Amino acid sequence: MITMPRGPQPAGFPEVGATNLSVVLRYMRAHMPCSRSDIAVATGLNKSTVSSLVADLIERRLLREIGFTEHRIGRPPTMLVLDGSPYAAIGLEVNDNLTAVAVDLAGEQILSWRRSFRGLESTPSQAATAIAALGRRAVNRLVKQGRHVLGLTIGVPGLVDPTGAVRLAANLGWRDIDLRDRLTRALGAPDYPVIVDNDANLAVIAESRYGEFAGTQNLVYLTGEVGIGAGIISGGRLIRGANGFPGEVGHLQVDPDGPVCGCGRSGCLESVASISALVAKALPDSANDGAVTDLAPEVAEVARRARAQDPTALKALTETGRALGHGVSILANLLDPEVVVLGGYFVPLARWLLPAAEAELHSRSVSAADARRIVASTLGHGAAATGAAATVLDHVDAGNLPNA
Amino acid sequence: MITMPRGPQPAGFPEVGATNLSVVLRYMRAHMPCSRSDIAVATGLNKSTVSSLVADLIERRLLREIGFTEHRIGRPPTMLVLDGSPYAAIGLEVNDNLTAVAVDLAGEQILSWRRSFRGLESTPSQAATAIAALGRRAVNRLVKQGRHVLGLTIGVPGLVDPTGAVRLAANLGWRDIDLRDRLTRALGAPDYPVIVDNDANLAVIAESRYGEFAGTQNLVYLTGEVGIGAGIISGGRLIRGANGFPGEVGHLQVDPDGPVCGCGRSGCLESVASISALVAKALPDSANDGAVTDLAPEVAEVARRARAQDPTALKALTETGRALGHGVSILANLLDPEVVVLGGYFVPLARWLLPAAEAELHSRSVSAADARRIVASTLGHGAAATGAAATVLDHVDAGNLPNA
Repeated sequence: MITMPRGPQPAGFPEVGATNLSVVLRYMRAHMPCSRSDIAVATGLNKSTVSSLVADLIERRLLREIGFTEHRIGRPPTMLVLDGSPYAAIGLEVNDNLTAVAVDLAGEQILSWRRSFRGLESTPSQAATAIAALGRRAVNRLVKQGRHVLGLTIGVPGLVDPTGAVRLAANLGWRDIDLRDRLTRALGAPDYPVIVDNDANLAVIAESRYGEFAGTQNLVYLTGEVGIGAGIISGGRLIRGANGFPGEVGHLQVDPDGPVCGCGRSGCLESVASISALVAKALPDSANDGAVTDLAPEVAEVARRARAQDPTALKALTETGRALGHGVSILANLLDPEVVVLGGYFVPLARWLLPAAEAELHSRSVSAADARRIVASTLGHGAAATGAAATVLDHVDAGNLPNA
Repeated sequence: MITMPRGPQPAGFPEVGATNLSVVLRYMRAHMPCSRSDIAVATGLNKSTVSSLVADLIERRLLREIGFTEHRIGRPPTMLVLDGSPYAAIGLEVNDNLTAVAVDLAGEQILSWRRSFRGLESTPSQAATAIAALGRRAVNRLVKQGRHVLGLTIGVPGLVDPTGAVRLAANLGWRDIDLRDRLTRALGAPDYPVIVDNDANLAVIAESRYGEFAGTQNLVYLTGEVGIGAGIISGGRLIRGANGFPGEVGHLQVDPDGPVCGCGRSGCLESVASISALVAKALPDSANDGAVTDLAPEVAEVARRARAQDPTALKALTETGRALGHGVSILANLLDPEVVVLGGYFVPLARWLLPAAEAELHSRSVSAADARRIVASTLGHGAAATGAAATVLDHVDAGNLPNA
C-alpha cells in the first residue's frame, strides 16, 4: 500500500479543479476506505464540491464505492476506495539483473519479474534493447489483463539528466545514452509518461514509503548493487540538486592509498567497498572468472564462508564495513539523517558489515553519533523498481489523471 | 531589501485569517509598491478580503499607503509599501568578533556594529554575558528610536539544538551552553522571539537573499571564520537535518596524514584549511603569539605577503585552497549545488585560494564539474548576522504578527 507521510491540503485559487481532484486522490491514498463526508471534513472542501470531485473520479474509474460502514449512527455513509484494478504503474530497475514491478492504482503489486541481464558485457545499444524488450513485455502482459498503463519509470545506476539521458553509468560502461528516447520508441511512443531516474533516488523513495523507517523525514539509502549510490531525503523531500546528480557517494575518496577506481581516481568508496570489490577480496580464488553478470551467487558464497568463520571472508567484510562507515559518516556529518539504510547485496551481508560500519561512523561523527543508525533495508532487491512504480502513482496523484 | 524567490500563494481553509495576512505580507515584500488590486490579482484573494487584510496590516503599522501611481488609466489606485519604521529585527553573530545588525520591517539596515570579543579566551559564561550585553545595547538603542523589536536571532559557530542550546562550539570551547536561555534572561524575558541558530545556516540564508547568487535554489556557503561550517540550501530550502546538525564539513577528513585537530581526529578540513591553520602556515614567525582573538590583522598580513609574492604565504594559500577544493568536492558530489560560496576571511584571500580550490574540485567531481563554481561572497563579514535578521522578518511574514 502506498501512503503519504503528511496529509494533503486543498489548493488555492489557481487550477482549483485539477488540484482539488489531486487533494481527494491523495487523501484517499492515505485514509481509505472513507466517506465523502470524511474527505470534506479532513480537506476543508465543501460537501457539494467533494461530491462532484468524487463523481468525476468514479467516472474515470480511479475511485469506487464499496458499500456501507457499520460504525456510525443514523444512515450509514457509502465508503470509497481507490479503484486499483483498471490501472497499472510500472517500475523497472537496471543493475546486474533487470527488475520489473507493477502496482495497481491502489498500490497493490500485480507484477514482479527479475531477469538476468548481460548489460555489463554487452554494448549500451544491446543493453537498451534488452531493457526496452522487458518493458514492452510488461506492458503487453498488463494490457492483456485489461489494464490501462499509467506510466513507466526506470532506475539506472548512474547520472541521469532531467531529459532522461544517462550521462554516465560507469559500472555499465554507458556514457551519454538517451535511454528515455530509446525506450519511448521501443514502446511505440505511448501516451503515458516514460521517465528515467537514478536508481538510488527511486530506492530511497521506496524506503521512505514502504521500508522499516517509512515516514522518516531525513533518510539516506545506499545502493549495494553494481555501484554505490546514495538517495537522500532531507526534510521530507528528495534531494535533486542543480543538475540531477546528487548522492554521488561512490567516488568520494575514503583511502588515498587505496586501489585505482574505474573512474581513474584512487581509493574511491566504490573501489574499496563495492560488492565487486568485496567479492574480489573475500573470494580471492574466484576473482578472475571474468565479467560478473549476476552478483547473487558470489554474495551467497561470501555469506556462506563468513558463517563458516573463513578468516579471509571475515576480514574482507570488516574492511568493507569500515569503508562503508566512513562513507556514511560523510553523509551523516553533512546531512544529519536519522537513519542510513544499506540496500541491495549489502542486506544479506549486513550482520557482518554493520558492526564495523557503526564503529567507524561513530568515530567519525562530529555529533549525535548515538542518535544515528545504519540499518539493512527490509525491501530486498528491486527497491528502486518499487520506488519507480510509486513515482508513477505520485504523478497521477499530483493531478495528471488518465482519461475515463 | 528583502525579496522572496517565489511568489506566495493563498492558504487553504485552515487558519485562513492569519495565513492570508501572511500571503499579503509576503507578496508586498516581493512586489512593493503595489495596489490592493495588484494583490488581489496576484494572490487570487478577492478584493474585499484584500481590503480588509490591508486595513488590518495598516492598523498594525506593518503597511502604509504612499499615495498614487501615475501609470494607470482612470482613477489611480493608492499604492502600499511595507511600513518599516516602527519595527526592528535584530541579528547577532558570534565569531572572533561580535556583529550586530538590525533591519526595519522593509529590510532596510538601521544598525550595524562590529565589536571585539574575548570569547576565545574567556569562559563560556563570560562570553554569554558579553553577547547578552551587546544584544541588550542593540535593543535599547532601537527602543530609544521608538521602534518595536520583532525578534532577535543569533548565529553561533557550532551545533545548536532546536531549543537554542549550543551543544558544541569547539572553536569557542563551548559544550552544552544554554545560550538562548541566558540571552532571554539577560534581555528581561522579552515578548519577542529569541532564537539561536548555526552561523552557517544564517549566512547561507543571507547569501540566498542578498548575495550575488540570490535566488539560486541549490547553494552552499562555507564560513571562513574561527571554524569552517557549511550552510546548505537544496531545492530552495535550508537543510536542517534530523537534529539540526547538518553541514559539519569542518571535521571531514581530507588528509589522513594531516595534523591533529582540536576535535581529536587527524586531518580534518579545519585542521588543514581553517583561517587559523592558514595563518599559522603563512606567518610562521607570528604563529606563537597566543590565542588569536581577532583574525583580521593576521589575514591582512597574509594578503600583504601574498601580494609581495612571499613564497611561504603563497604556498600556504595554495595548500589551503586545495584542501578547500577537496571539501567542496565532497559537498558538490553529494548535493550537486550550482555554486559554493566562500565567506568570511576567505573573501579577502579568494584570489589566491580559488585557483587551487577550483582545480581540486574539478579533479574530484564525478560530473558536471564545469557547471559548478566556487566563488567568494560579496556580503563580507556579518553575513550570518544579516541572515539572522532576515529570519526574524520571515517569522513575521509567516503570520506571527506584532500587535498594533
